[in-house]
Amino acid sequence: MKIKKIYVNAILQFLEDKVLLVHGSIDGIYIDNLAEVERVNETTLDWIKPSKPNKQEIAESSKARVLLVDSSVLPIEGKTLIVVKSPKVALAEIGNHFFVEKVAPGIHPTATIHPEAKIGDNCHIGPYTVIGKTSIGENCIIDAHVRIYDDVVMGHDCVVKSGAVLGGAGFGYERDVDGDRFRFPQIGQLIMGDFVEVGSNTCIDRGALADTVIGDYTKINNLCHIAHNNKIGRNVMITGCVNISGSNVIDDNVWIAPNASVRGWVHIGEGATVGMAAVVVKDIPAHETWVGNPARKLEK
Amino acid sequence: MKIKKIYVNAILQFLEDKVLLVHGSIDGIYIDNLAEVERVNETTLDWIKPSKPNKQEIAESSKARVLLVDSSVLPIEGKTLIVVKSPKVALAEIGNHFFVEKVAPGIHPTATIHPEAKIGDNCHIGPYTVIGKTSIGENCIIDAHVRIYDDVVMGHDCVVKSGAVLGGAGFGYERDVDGDRFRFPQIGQLIMGDFVEVGSNTCIDRGALADTVIGDYTKINNLCHIAHNNKIGRNVMITGCVNISGSNVIDDNVWIAPNASVRGWVHIGEGATVGMAAVVVKDIPAHETWVGNPARKLEK
Amino acid sequence: MKIKKIYVNAILQFLEDKVLLVHGSIDGIYIDNLAEVERVNETTLDWIKPSKPNKQEIAESSKARVLLVDSSVLPIEGKTLIVVKSPKVALAEIGNHFFVEKVAPGIHPTATIHPEAKIGDNCHIGPYTVIGKTSIGENCIIDAHVRIYDDVVMGHDCVVKSGAVLGGAGFGYERDVDGDRFRFPQIGQLIMGDFVEVGSNTCIDRGALADTVIGDYTKINNLCHIAHNNKIGRNVMITGCVNISGSNVIDDNVWIAPNASVRGWVHIGEGATVGMAAVVVKDIPAHETWVGNPARKLEK
Repeated sequence: MKIKKIYVNAILQFLEDKVLLVHGSIDGIYIDNLAEVERVNETTLDWIKPSKPNKQEIAESSKARVLLVDSSVLPIEGKTLIVVKSPKVALAEIGNHFFVEKVAPGIHPTATIHPEAKIGDNCHIGPYTVIGKTSIGENCIIDAHVRIYDDVVMGHDCVVKSGAVLGGAGFGYERDVDGDRFRFPQIGQLIMGDFVEVGSNTCIDRGALADTVIGDYTKINNLCHIAHNNKIGRNVMITGCVNISGSNVIDDNVWIAPNASVRGWVHIGEGATVGMAAVVVKDIPAHETWVGNPARKLEK
Repeated sequence: MKIKKIYVNAILQFLEDKVLLVHGSIDGIYIDNLAEVERVNETTLDWIKPSKPNKQEIAESSKARVLLVDSSVLPIEGKTLIVVKSPKVALAEIGNHFFVEKVAPGIHPTATIHPEAKIGDNCHIGPYTVIGKTSIGENCIIDAHVRIYDDVVMGHDCVVKSGAVLGGAGFGYERDVDGDRFRFPQIGQLIMGDFVEVGSNTCIDRGALADTVIGDYTKINNLCHIAHNNKIGRNVMITGCVNISGSNVIDDNVWIAPNASVRGWVHIGEGATVGMAAVVVKDIPAHETWVGNPARKLEK
Repeated sequence: MKIKKIYVNAILQFLEDKVLLVHGSIDGIYIDNLAEVERVNETTLDWIKPSKPNKQEIAESSKARVLLVDSSVLPIEGKTLIVVKSPKVALAEIGNHFFVEKVAPGIHPTATIHPEAKIGDNCHIGPYTVIGKTSIGENCIIDAHVRIYDDVVMGHDCVVKSGAVLGGAGFGYERDVDGDRFRFPQIGQLIMGDFVEVGSNTCIDRGALADTVIGDYTKINNLCHIAHNNKIGRNVMITGCVNISGSNVIDDNVWIAPNASVRGWVHIGEGATVGMAAVVVKDIPAHETWVGNPARKLEK
């Protein structure tokens, strides 16, 4: 993280009407870092979680001069309290705006892009990335060593981390007359929405005769495998090392915990949670949590 | 998928004596796509699964003009039925021949290949692939960003998808006099048969003092880890995210479902099935199915 | 493995005072390979495991002329026995010295390195590797297609295998006012000690507001995912396909078996063992072994 002075005034201007109230001094007060609790110092922008029982006490004992708090925290002598509805969301927005280095648009000269590929405006394409006959929306960030095969359609504002492989042929085989395997045609597309993020070394296969579809705002962590023909909704969270076999339907706002496995041809309903390393072999109704091997409904 | 007209006559010529019979018109009749059931249209080449109970009805209600069927389906007014023993195998062969774009042989100028490597005729080697002192048979397709270390021997007609790593040093360590770890020599080979396929970002390590061996026609999906000294047979199916630790013997025609783990030093007999996310800690007899953590025989 | 003659005299000079005794001839005696038991021949350097009950018999029936043994093995007519405290450690050291090809230092011309990166002396950096604003100690071996993002600090004598991704942004998201996800700032560092090894296609994320830390001599196998903010100690063994979610503390000498999952915010005590595919959802005390889904203490 770069150390640089951010004055409270600049923060207030950035947050605009998300600021409900300010307690304490503003003029000349600055922060210069964000930090986990153990490393908070006088110039950290600290924040107090609204769900904590003793948040007044935590706020008072923080080493930080400036804190993001909710409206139940009372003024504290010598501290600047920026009152917002959601301190953590405000912290995230401030961090992204002031501390996260922006990736500059541009196509690295070593990227190898098919002449028929369509790349939207303001995309960043990193070194050694290889892109086939695809369509990529604007403002996408595609890092190094990414492989995008033909027939991928990517929306705008997507992020693809290093080493991901998108649109590869799926794992479907038939046996020939001698009983040896040969590949079933894998000629569907991979269609990704907007604001999708794909982690490093994750693989998402193209469809076989259908398409593989990933909805808007869905986030996929590192080292996941998403097989052919899956239909995945919006705001789905697929965490690290998850395996999703072919032809499932996964509705909006599903959360799939790390290292879970989803058998092919199942339906996971809206807002359901799949537990860590759960092994899903049947449909999961909306809003339920399933855990274990094989996965069963978690009863409270 | 490219849309192009394929006349029934061309299909019959291609299938040759696999065609048992044709019902309906041939002249001027064409198909121009393959599709999953929801998207079948008049010019799709549709197919009817022989095991369905109501296949005559399904065939009659298909929107497609041309269908691949087995001999139990009766002629249908206005449809062309191509009767074959195995409609799905015929569909796969037609798809591969007419619809799957062929990868052209050739070595991409950015591929970095050791001067002592032996590369067979008609291989395709993709961008940024790095190949050590190896021997690769003819007709292999090795995509982008593949790393093949020294001492790999690959048969002919193999496919290696983007990001796979073949022949890396295995995970074997000893402790020195201070108790700190150092690597045990990993100086065996990786020997792969013919028609082997390796998925994206999959890693197969070379042997330590023995060799790692992968048999003909064995197919390995994305994101699998196959450790040193494994002896894997012919037509073995290793699906996504499987972890196979060192020094196992896996016989022909074994099926290993996604995210399964195989402890080292076990023997999996011919034709056995390892269930999804199963944790194999002991030998599995031939033709049995084992599931769970730890894996146990699945009783019917 | 290269075949080359290594005379017993050279081995004795290399081992120095680790040699307790030699039985049998030395002059003109050589070995030219290391091999697994099935392939031992007259010129293999064989070794006898001290824990075997019948080791005198095994030593006598070995086809090898030269063996590494402990002091309980008696002289054998026609064989040269090199007596050491730990035959396998001696074998490993001899193998590494005489048979493992050394990787030459040097930066491959296709490596893309940020101008502000600091690379120590005698490092090897392979083809197509991409390195951001980082600090890398001396004697590191970083193979092909590695991606090291900004703010990684790597010690000396580390090994990073092909396709690994170090210091990527972690998987932390908040919801905006519309309920859609956006990334929480990931601006901590990844700090790696000395003699750390990272397997192929493994991903280790940078910290969010804290740092991710990997201790000296810790070895990580292929296809592991280590999320943000983990504090991992010294000599920890993380085997293939392990998923470690965020913000755990893992003490020295822990062994994590393949495909295990560790939930965030747990503490694994010194010398503990996590079983294959174990699903760790609570703290594990030092020196205990936990297995299963969810993981529980393994009682003897």
